[in-house]
Amino acid sequence: MGQKVVGTGARAGAPVVCVIGGGQLARMMQEAAIALGVELRALVEADDGSAGQAIRYSQVGAADDRATIEEFVDGEIVTVEHEHIPDDILRAIDSRPSADALVFAQDKLVMRASLDAPHPTWYEAATADDIDAAVERLGGVAIAKVPRGGYDGKGVAVIRSHTDIPWTWEGDSVLVEEKVPFDMEVSQLVARRPSGEMVAWPLVRSVQRDGICFEVTAPAPVPDDLREQAAAIAARIADQTGVVGVLAVEMFVVRGALIVNELAMRPHNTGHWTIEGAVTSQFEQHLRAVLDLPLGDTRAVAPWSVMVNLLDSALSDPREALRDVWEADPGVKIHMYGKEVRPGRKIGHVTVTGTDLDDVRARAHAAIATLEGR
Amino acid sequence: MGQKVVGTGARAGAPVVCVIGGGQLARMMQEAAIALGVELRALVEADDGSAGQAIRYSQVGAADDRATIEEFVDGEIVTVEHEHIPDDILRAIDSRPSADALVFAQDKLVMRASLDAPHPTWYEAATADDIDAAVERLGGVAIAKVPRGGYDGKGVAVIRSHTDIPWTWEGDSVLVEEKVPFDMEVSQLVARRPSGEMVAWPLVRSVQRDGICFEVTAPAPVPDDLREQAAAIAARIADQTGVVGVLAVEMFVVRGALIVNELAMRPHNTGHWTIEGAVTSQFEQHLRAVLDLPLGDTRAVAPWSVMVNLLDSALSDPREALRDVWEADPGVKIHMYGKEVRPGRKIGHVTVTGTDLDDVRARAHAAIATLEGR
Repeated sequence: MGQKVVGTGARAGAPVVCVIGGGQLARMMQEAAIALGVELRALVEADDGSAGQAIRYSQVGAADDRATIEEFVDGEIVTVEHEHIPDDILRAIDSRPSADALVFAQDKLVMRASLDAPHPTWYEAATADDIDAAVERLGGVAIAKVPRGGYDGKGVAVIRSHTDIPWTWEGDSVLVEEKVPFDMEVSQLVARRPSGEMVAWPLVRSVQRDGICFEVTAPAPVPDDLREQAAAIAARIADQTGVVGVLAVEMFVVRGALIVNELAMRPHNTGHWTIEGAVTSQFEQHLRAVLDLPLGDTRAVAPWSVMVNLLDSALSDPREALRDVWEADPGVKIHMYGKEVRPGRKIGHVTVTGTDLDDVRARAHAAIATLEGR
Repeated sequence: MGQKVVGTGARAGAPVVCVIGGGQLARMMQEAAIALGVELRALVEADDGSAGQAIRYSQVGAADDRATIEEFVDGEIVTVEHEHIPDDILRAIDSRPSADALVFAQDKLVMRASLDAPHPTWYEAATADDIDAAVERLGGVAIAKVPRGGYDGKGVAVIRSHTDIPWTWEGDSVLVEEKVPFDMEVSQLVARRPSGEMVAWPLVRSVQRDGICFEVTAPAPVPDDLREQAAAIAARIADQTGVVGVLAVEMFVVRGALIVNELAMRPHNTGHWTIEGAVTSQFEQHLRAVLDLPLGDTRAVAPWSVMVNLLDSALSDPREALRDVWEADPGVKIHMYGKEVRPGRKIGHVTVTGTDLDDVRARAHAAIATLEGR
């Protein structure tokens, strides 16, 4: 197990894409790679992890081990599954997206300070006094964010004082932001090629639970002018950053306007619905983009798609519940990531498509309830 | 390469399905297995073949090597990608479908003699005189078939005399059949669980080229009563044979009636359209059936789907043409099997879905023409 099995040369001619990161995004990217005849090679944390189970040409290695990564990439096209890869390594392997693009997704202070987009009111604070002063200027309550390394609700907190910050921040800057009184959270996914060609999927609505994406509805139930604003904001960000691959721009809808919350430069949880719900999935699109191939049709194939994450389960293995889910509803599309259950961990998702939004949403949540063992 | 890497136990709880056969069917089954969190293990002819490239837990072995196969299966649920596996091995590993079911797909004489279905007029002949007598009774021209082992047009010939048979038949029986003056060829796919639950996809039309499936249109443009007859014939065959998994019944439409041509007990070329065109693909369905899980919704997701096979190419690697195909049509779904080009060999397929049949068909054929290097 775990020995290097790439590069036998037996598949000369196969487009090769290397991906750093062994989670469910690389796993789902492999479904698209198999169909396209693309040889996906993954640098994974664990040989039998989510991606290692699914990717024939996988190799164990750490995302900060430059020597291993350079040997693994070996001059091929390389992309990343997450933002937590050192800048010097990204430059050494000429990653897609590039280090210069990824910094906007890696560092929330850079994103706020440099990105030409609508931002919430924000402050950079490095001392208790500065943090408390920022909170006061923001009305007594604010959102504190760790500038680098946060994810899935980690490194984000609602604070009224520096004492509310649940991580060790002393010595580092903290991003202190306005707590936006949003009406809705939406996400705009686009994909961009090195040539500059760009496509956008329909805007979606996302609902968080404990700071983690829980439900996504495509399309977002908003007016057309808001869709156009969202697409324009994402397109401007894609051009400014020069991103290659999928870009997710998570935004707040507040009093009919849009404010940028977060960025991700990779396939994103708010795009999982595209596997069944769009002509071209975000995973196929990401491969096409990093290979600089023409981008695919992003239109929805059904009036409504709802995706719900499986974030925990009372079952030792939720796959035991496949039978019960399908006894109740044979049309639910289930995606399991081959991960062990841990509270708040993304271990799978379901997608339902159809013509009646209430029905589609109810079916997706019923399936998740069963997989959760409720 | 090629060492056994299954059964680490690290994925305890993962449903396991073993498949014998390393071609594109196992490869496409892996796309579905990844999504469901099913651990697919493949016994492949070549470690870097179509399935070996895509399946992490693959092992090299011959489909007639009983000791290797028994060790490979190791008591897990096992299915097969083709019919050419010795009967004693199928029984030893308790395959799904079973040896008793598969014989109807393996042996065309058994199928003709035992299957409760509409057959063409046929004769079993073992001598030159018997063959010529059968041809004469059938009007001077007939179809000769090798009872076992034929595929993709091999072992099938139009004959006017025993001297027209292109394979060595002396000492073996030959199936001599009426050359049915058909108006159309159709294929009915159904799936059946051990429990007996059965589902049917929409009837499709298939067009052959040199005896090989070339184009599939879903749904078949035929009257509803013919659809119902086709579904009833396939259901009766599924019940009579006790098949588990996907069953494909290829039939001729002649003067408004149906005559059974061939059977396959596995995912079938005439079902590839279901990957994009149906709520549940034949590959996911086959896994659900062999695992005795509730079967999925078989409804089409678009008014029309057309699949066209890539059977040859002037290009050394048709993947070089992905750019040209997508420059012309970003919505074509391409499936490449990771195989080298050989005339008449199935190396990939494309599927297009939409609302206008002429447009959908034209787009699919245009994509194939580009992949063929024409």
